[in-house]
Amino acid sequence: MYVIIAYDISVERVNKVKGYLRTQLTWVQNSLFEGEITESRYLRIAGKLAELIEPGADTITIYKFPNKSVIERIDLGITKGHPDDIIL
Amino acid sequence: MYVIIAYDISVERVNKVKGYLRTQLTWVQNSLFEGEITESRYLRIAGKLAELIEPGADTITIYKFPNKSVIERIDLGITKGHPDDIIL
Repeated sequence: MYVIIAYDISVERVNKVKGYLRTQLTWVQNSLFEGEITESRYLRIAGKLAELIEPGADTITIYKFPNKSVIERIDLGITKGHPDDIIL
Repeated sequence: MYVIIAYDISVERVNKVKGYLRTQLTWVQNSLFEGEITESRYLRIAGKLAELIEPGADTITIYKFPNKSVIERIDLGITKGHPDDIIL
């Protein structure tokens, strides 16, 4: 499966969320990540994110797709996250 | 077709981009919008966004889908943008 994950997290917690997602997915821009993952890894990621956020204050939007082929991505301006970028 | 649009825009231009997208799509959170549109409206939106940004400094990522049914959306924490929210 393929996921796109966007977050809007309070400053106290944002680095933990961003740092975690960097170990799991490809960074696209700003607060946006995407990547091909297994269902079990998806469950692990969603569980960890639910644990990291404050549910009354933060928002994470996860878009799940059966596979990448249903998605067409168009970049306007600078393309920031390249698949071969190593962001740690 | 269905689109998800995320942006990372310099502060001088962000309000113009956000204000324009609010007239065209549904706000999800932070710098993220989505919505069902026609192909011709997509071309109009992409053209207008290309016009509003500074290509050497800003980033807009557009994800296009044949229809909404290929997307499953999961919200963690607060769901900020409701389809019936009127944001002007």
